[in-house]
Amino acid sequence: MQKRKSTQRDREKKRMAKVVAKKIAVSAVSSDFEVGDEAVKMFNVKTSSSSSLPCPLLMFSPTARGSYPILLFFHGFALKPIWYKSLLQHISSHGYIIVAPEFSPLSSQSQEVKNAGKVADWLTYNNLESVLPDKVLPDLLKVAVSGHSRGGKIAFALALGYGGSSSSSSTTPLKFLALLGIDPVAGFSPSCLCPPNILQYVPYDFDQSIPVAVIGAGLSNQRAYGVLPPGAPNGVNHAEFFNESKPPCYYFLAKDYGHTDILDDKIADLISIVLKSGKGSKDSLRRAVGGIVVAFLKAYLEGQVDDLNAIVESPTLAPITLDPVISVKD
Amino acid sequence: MQKRKSTQRDREKKRMAKVVAKKIAVSAVSSDFEVGDEAVKMFNVKTSSSSSLPCPLLMFSPTARGSYPILLFFHGFALKPIWYKSLLQHISSHGYIIVAPEFSPLSSQSQEVKNAGKVADWLTYNNLESVLPDKVLPDLLKVAVSGHSRGGKIAFALALGYGGSSSSSSTTPLKFLALLGIDPVAGFSPSCLCPPNILQYVPYDFDQSIPVAVIGAGLSNQRAYGVLPPGAPNGVNHAEFFNESKPPCYYFLAKDYGHTDILDDKIADLISIVLKSGKGSKDSLRRAVGGIVVAFLKAYLEGQVDDLNAIVESPTLAPITLDPVISVKD
Repeated sequence: MQKRKSTQRDREKKRMAKVVAKKIAVSAVSSDFEVGDEAVKMFNVKTSSSSSLPCPLLMFSPTARGSYPILLFFHGFALKPIWYKSLLQHISSHGYIIVAPEFSPLSSQSQEVKNAGKVADWLTYNNLESVLPDKVLPDLLKVAVSGHSRGGKIAFALALGYGGSSSSSSTTPLKFLALLGIDPVAGFSPSCLCPPNILQYVPYDFDQSIPVAVIGAGLSNQRAYGVLPPGAPNGVNHAEFFNESKPPCYYFLAKDYGHTDILDDKIADLISIVLKSGKGSKDSLRRAVGGIVVAFLKAYLEGQVDDLNAIVESPTLAPITLDPVISVKD
Repeated sequence: MQKRKSTQRDREKKRMAKVVAKKIAVSAVSSDFEVGDEAVKMFNVKTSSSSSLPCPLLMFSPTARGSYPILLFFHGFALKPIWYKSLLQHISSHGYIIVAPEFSPLSSQSQEVKNAGKVADWLTYNNLESVLPDKVLPDLLKVAVSGHSRGGKIAFALALGYGGSSSSSSTTPLKFLALLGIDPVAGFSPSCLCPPNILQYVPYDFDQSIPVAVIGAGLSNQRAYGVLPPGAPNGVNHAEFFNESKPPCYYFLAKDYGHTDILDDKIADLISIVLKSGKGSKDSLRRAVGGIVVAFLKAYLEGQVDDLNAIVESPTLAPITLDPVISVKD
């Protein structure tokens, strides 16, 4: 009987350990959905005649001494990096340096992809360190690439090798470890795509070897007032980018939100005049997207998979409805 | 040492057993790609005033005494079941009863789905046995549904519950165990879909609980002479049907073939004047598609998964290039 009691006690201990572990995991992932502990400095990097930088950058960086992973972020068409301030600050406050180029609204997508490649080259050649706060170091071995809307497509194009290298003597091309598309858009319709044409309408077609996360907005395919063109039409939006990604890949649909609801409140409200917008709190959406990005970066830049797994297993941990959440393993 | 020798011998035996098993599997799956052993009778079932059948049927049935699983097959727009004779005979010769309704070319898709439901009801009420060869029994517990082109969409719509029941007193609706789309098409473009609108442009969105196989044609999104409309445009074709299917689901792309190349030679050649056609042997394509269908039916109607697994693991077993082949498990 003694033995049996001890076994029962062991089982109870194990069960409690599991409960505690689960609570810790939930608490950890919940903190991803809140602004993090790092103080963040936001600043601009301008182009100059002596720099190979093709366009200005908006930067977010932790200020405490240390080495931090990097997230490249490309804005959407006719938008500005500063309009994503809340989202990017949220991500940076979890210990990431964010590099957000500002493309000209007159650039073609091909020009944007080339310029994105030039920004990547600029990072490669250690230009980053000189612009960062004192004693903050960029960890160039931990770089992810991301973007919203048209910028999401630019991120995929860059990761798929369409960016080329700005310098023919480049010997150290930047390696991305992870790729994120936030409501990415490839054009107006499958029969009206803008070059470079990365969509082929074949599942798992992307020749990418790095993990992908796609976050879609459930209302982005809808028309404001039932008539205006949608921000992210069916067949060229989040779903197709996910479908063409090879595993491991993740899909999160922010079911009740519109294409530009992740922008800062004022600009999001302004754009909601022409693009379908969700009724829920935009702050909750930004915290949800920020949390997913942080959990994904933790998993694939830093090898800490718990938070990402927790969101996949329990999407209700997020502050908004994520439906569906899909994870396709290798 | 004796023990060690025996272990080595055991290992060698196991290795040989695996080699033999693999050879048997390869040989079994190879036979799926050839016409099977069953003699097949092809015949018509006409509508009559006393029958609840909404349209004529083309039937293929084994003739040897026995009980056989059933495959419902819906033809493409403005096509006829008889034009699929080689493919359907191939499948039937492996021990399947094939029921292929002939819809009016004037029917809307909604009417076709309703009529497909009525055909399913007609099967449910055991009308099938009376038209089959002597001593041939239909196994109504093993029914799969399939279709080509627009008929592929009809198959998905029926499996997803859009067919309804023709009889309000129906208490025994037919249960499908598996769903197959052969180059299915849902409309002209994502912004021009025909009702019933089953595509939602969200991955894994179909509310289906049965396994799905989608066989696509790699050239079906291309224009004949670079100008004519494609048979299965991007965004409404095979890829999207696969993307919206829940696991378990399978995808096979007949990379070098066109939308109607699986039809019998004469009609396929005629249609190739207006639809992009492949250059390879159409007989090889029909054998490949027939073999995949047979392997899929064996797996999900009869619980024999080896052939399907062999094709997924070694697509080169097929008589044509299948690229990609994707299997997404539960």
